[in-house]
Amino acid sequence: MACVRFLTFKPFHHLLRPTSGQIRAFSMSPPSTAVLYETHGPPDTVTKVVQLPPIEIKANDVCVKMLAAPINPSDYNRIQGVYPVRPPLPAVGGYEGAGEVHSVGSAVEGLSPGDLVMVSPPSTGTWQTHVVKDKSFWHKVDKGTPAEYAATVTINPLSALRMIEDYVNLKSGDAVVQNGATSMVGQCVIQLAKLRGIHTINIIRDRAGSDLAKEKLKKLGADEVYTESQLNVKNVKSLLGNVPEPTLGFNCVGGDAATLVLKFLRHGGTMVTYGGMAKKPVTVSTSSFIFKELTLTGFYLQKWINPDKTEECREMLDYLLGLIREGKLKYDMELVPFNEFHTALDKSLGKLGSQPKQVIKF
Amino acid sequence: MACVRFLTFKPFHHLLRPTSGQIRAFSMSPPSTAVLYETHGPPDTVTKVVQLPPIEIKANDVCVKMLAAPINPSDYNRIQGVYPVRPPLPAVGGYEGAGEVHSVGSAVEGLSPGDLVMVSPPSTGTWQTHVVKDKSFWHKVDKGTPAEYAATVTINPLSALRMIEDYVNLKSGDAVVQNGATSMVGQCVIQLAKLRGIHTINIIRDRAGSDLAKEKLKKLGADEVYTESQLNVKNVKSLLGNVPEPTLGFNCVGGDAATLVLKFLRHGGTMVTYGGMAKKPVTVSTSSFIFKELTLTGFYLQKWINPDKTEECREMLDYLLGLIREGKLKYDMELVPFNEFHTALDKSLGKLGSQPKQVIKF
Repeated sequence: MACVRFLTFKPFHHLLRPTSGQIRAFSMSPPSTAVLYETHGPPDTVTKVVQLPPIEIKANDVCVKMLAAPINPSDYNRIQGVYPVRPPLPAVGGYEGAGEVHSVGSAVEGLSPGDLVMVSPPSTGTWQTHVVKDKSFWHKVDKGTPAEYAATVTINPLSALRMIEDYVNLKSGDAVVQNGATSMVGQCVIQLAKLRGIHTINIIRDRAGSDLAKEKLKKLGADEVYTESQLNVKNVKSLLGNVPEPTLGFNCVGGDAATLVLKFLRHGGTMVTYGGMAKKPVTVSTSSFIFKELTLTGFYLQKWINPDKTEECREMLDYLLGLIREGKLKYDMELVPFNEFHTALDKSLGKLGSQPKQVIKF
Repeated sequence: MACVRFLTFKPFHHLLRPTSGQIRAFSMSPPSTAVLYETHGPPDTVTKVVQLPPIEIKANDVCVKMLAAPINPSDYNRIQGVYPVRPPLPAVGGYEGAGEVHSVGSAVEGLSPGDLVMVSPPSTGTWQTHVVKDKSFWHKVDKGTPAEYAATVTINPLSALRMIEDYVNLKSGDAVVQNGATSMVGQCVIQLAKLRGIHTINIIRDRAGSDLAKEKLKKLGADEVYTESQLNVKNVKSLLGNVPEPTLGFNCVGGDAATLVLKFLRHGGTMVTYGGMAKKPVTVSTSSFIFKELTLTGFYLQKWINPDKTEECREMLDYLLGLIREGKLKYDMELVPFNEFHTALDKSLGKLGSQPKQVIKF
């Protein structure tokens, strides 16, 4: 498997030119237990937990003992081969994560063993016990931060933050509407909007436990929470009460749940699609475009997490982690021991009903 | 019917307070032959050609002997009662039109009998031989302008102009894609884009005569014209040849024809919907929003033809009419004598297959 590990994380020529005999302290990483896939396919069948041998820690590398890494839909979409940006195969799964610095290369400054760090920008291969990457991929985080939050703050909370900021000039007192409100992005939208005095109208699926889900979202600051069936009324806006018609909507479901978001939007409003959990397209009437003058667009986090924006991105992550440490931003996660990875993956894939975000604890 | 005419064009109190006995020259209009509807419903059954008696020409009024007025889809949508902005009933049909000034009220300056004028901003009631409206509704037009062009330049050519200008900062060498390319807007898009060095990719329906339609559009300046069935290929972009991927698309059809426009658009492109001839919604995949970062929005001319924008709007109309007089902008119309109105309406409603824009000649 040594070859595999080199192929995944190092250019191939390193394999052909082994380092000289000058062994430095910490020049090699510990062996790593990793979730590997060699072909694209169903994530639960193509992923295997394997042992990878130690690899060289070069001058600018940092070796991190991972503490937490989430399973996001984009992770298993990469494994399925349906995500547009994918690592070459074979590859170790995972894209977000946080851990403790184990050792650093000779040219690394500002990071020391024991520091809490997160992968930033996110980068492939976080589902393993020890990750070696160039120092530019590691962002030092305040030690008071729970590792599972540092491991999960990029893909979902940052999406929520940017979606609230980037499309409509919202003011205190305005409203947004979203479906999939129990998702991690959904929970963050509620809290980040609330911090700015923005109301949220939240749509969730009809399912056992939806009353409990409503209560939880209201505790996070949701103004209104409806199940889809509650919105089977002639004019959904009659339900708004004192909440103003929303100018901005978020859709992570598609199909009828997207139509509900469109129905709530005010004239000239914008719906941002950032996911498609129902695997159904968005359908829009001609009159919604012409007479209601709605705009539909999409959010893709990639533009915020590319290397050109690393500093800007880290400032936003620090802001979000600050809110987390102050107790102003929180979200549901289920922490799962690494040796139960495949159960967590099954939960994440929806095989065991609705589940909170699955986060591997190493 | 006198009552009807007063109700349509004058506040009701004029009926209760008849003018004094001081009769001035031209103080009353000629009687008018008009297409009237008293209820909403199928346009071919609820419209009747009636004689309306003379009405008073007040100090600021202008009485125009109409020369030409088109039948636009929005006209029969108003009659059907499905258009959001509709005149009170009973009403005379029509919204655009041009004619010759017959007489003017005592306070009217700058307009004289014999002048060629168009209704601007467009205003209800142009389907009749004599129209009396406040002077603010009449825009004087160069006498070298064919009346049928002055009568039709607002709803469709102005839409084409604004759609090219308002959504994407197009540069010479860029491309746009549109369906419904044989429509009046479609023909104008081709020519107005060409004037700016912008390529057009045009999609038309499969039907008898589509080869002829292609040839006509190419003569207007179309770079590429495809029938929908020709686009039943794996990758429509392989057909582009030297034309760049379009950044902007126009949809006036909906359904599959809208999907074809989306397929041609480049990453980050925008599709503007301005009609729905197929009466089918627009369906968009989640990945089109997220990974292709497409934006979908709508165009509604109303914002350009409201009274606040009259001067700005008239400048644009003069520009378009100038192009028309120079032979740089033209479009298909079928001129129909007023006494064949119901045949023209049937053609406009699509009962007799595909037909050019129907324009009543009085």
